[in-house]
Amino acid sequence: MTPSVHPIGITRFAAGQSRQLTDLLSVEEPLEISIRYGMNLIIKNLSVTMRTPGHDEELALGFLLSEGIIVNFGQVIGAVQEGPDRISVILHEDTPFDPTKFERHIYTTSSCGICAKSSIEAVRVENTLGQLQQEWSVAASTLHRLPGLLRERQADFASTGGLHAAALFTPKGKFLVMREDVGRHNALDKLIGHALQSNVCPLRTQILLLSGRASFELIQKAALAGISFVAAVGAPSTLAVQLAVEMKLVLIGFLRDNRFNVYSEAERVEA
Amino acid sequence: MTPSVHPIGITRFAAGQSRQLTDLLSVEEPLEISIRYGMNLIIKNLSVTMRTPGHDEELALGFLLSEGIIVNFGQVIGAVQEGPDRISVILHEDTPFDPTKFERHIYTTSSCGICAKSSIEAVRVENTLGQLQQEWSVAASTLHRLPGLLRERQADFASTGGLHAAALFTPKGKFLVMREDVGRHNALDKLIGHALQSNVCPLRTQILLLSGRASFELIQKAALAGISFVAAVGAPSTLAVQLAVEMKLVLIGFLRDNRFNVYSEAERVEA
Repeated sequence: MTPSVHPIGITRFAAGQSRQLTDLLSVEEPLEISIRYGMNLIIKNLSVTMRTPGHDEELALGFLLSEGIIVNFGQVIGAVQEGPDRISVILHEDTPFDPTKFERHIYTTSSCGICAKSSIEAVRVENTLGQLQQEWSVAASTLHRLPGLLRERQADFASTGGLHAAALFTPKGKFLVMREDVGRHNALDKLIGHALQSNVCPLRTQILLLSGRASFELIQKAALAGISFVAAVGAPSTLAVQLAVEMKLVLIGFLRDNRFNVYSEAERVEA
Repeated sequence: MTPSVHPIGITRFAAGQSRQLTDLLSVEEPLEISIRYGMNLIIKNLSVTMRTPGHDEELALGFLLSEGIIVNFGQVIGAVQEGPDRISVILHEDTPFDPTKFERHIYTTSSCGICAKSSIEAVRVENTLGQLQQEWSVAASTLHRLPGLLRERQADFASTGGLHAAALFTPKGKFLVMREDVGRHNALDKLIGHALQSNVCPLRTQILLLSGRASFELIQKAALAGISFVAAVGAPSTLAVQLAVEMKLVLIGFLRDNRFNVYSEAERVEA
């Protein structure tokens, strides 16, 4: 398997001096994700994503869940390598899949459609997990500790500075699992794929921590995986907040330097 | 027009205290980009992107150039609003456009195709601007100053912390123009669109500064706009470096804290 970091010769300029040295880069390579469905295992290409190699099966499974194509791991037989940089997920024969609906789906939710209203409506409709609203809450002191716990585990980021991370924690702040990728959506898809394979989806009782900013698409993916509590080290966008409010999902931003902002469902954070 | 920042009520936790206040968020909204082509101005939808409103015409024009659909502003009649969040660029009647080729193009270059080799080959073929290699060089001391010059102008980032920026500078470090967006590709497309409208494309004698990481897709867009010198505040990926090396484009990463790394064409940086 291609490693996720790669050494390369560079010239470093620092303090007025330049020198030749070897540095580590995050690997970025394309992966084509397809599904095989129906009696005859017809192949349908879904997406080509630029990703960091590793955990490709999780990435493919998480992508299918977070795009609304599958709702649980039981709908899947498994994943197969179709070639280098090509992976297919084989759906169970009785898993419903309508390729034309998928064209529409990509258009109206992943790529987001034409108005926020209809996009948010689409997420609600696709979300067969039911209401995201949960009763459990998290202490502010627990939240402050999460970015440090993530950094301790971000080995590849530490060496390359080039990776986004997504991680799950318990409401008490116990670290569960983390995935890294050059693409922030891929890091989350891998994490969701791991949860699917571990049969812990929907993720009703986990905190999702994002190493960067919170975009609409990341909140959409989280909601489709049943996640009701998202904390981001960076800023959220307007549409991310709007979706979080409508889905009753806790959204926290700027979680760093012993502070954070709560953009929705603030009553689930204990001072 | 929708503003690029939006006020929202939040709860801030800091130093063990929580309080209600109003904060500013980066606006993220979908924009559908289409073209109208041929005698009958047939409409063809190209992309739905999540962007920060503002400079939509530049975004659409830059997208067309950096996807290889047009090569100069003379191929375009203008842009029209087709509705809220929908913009079309009208191609000149004699501008060649083959919708089937575009399907392939999106697949093999923007979404990047299946192997790095073929993707890089595709960029080379699409690049009708000729060789990127240039003779001019930039002093290390000039490069060190660029991130500060960018931050001074990033008004929206300062207020929201949520925007990527792309900016152009002269080889002597004079600031020319900057664009910001929630999406890093959009910030670059807007910048390229502005250059197209200003008739300064191809950008043979400008430095491109990116506020974040350098992905393959950003280097690809830069190359198609004729840019031969790219500096990023964040890390590059392997594929970004590979493309820069093959296109003879200077690629600098980690440009901050008075240091930087050069990943290709180091002889164009003066110590």
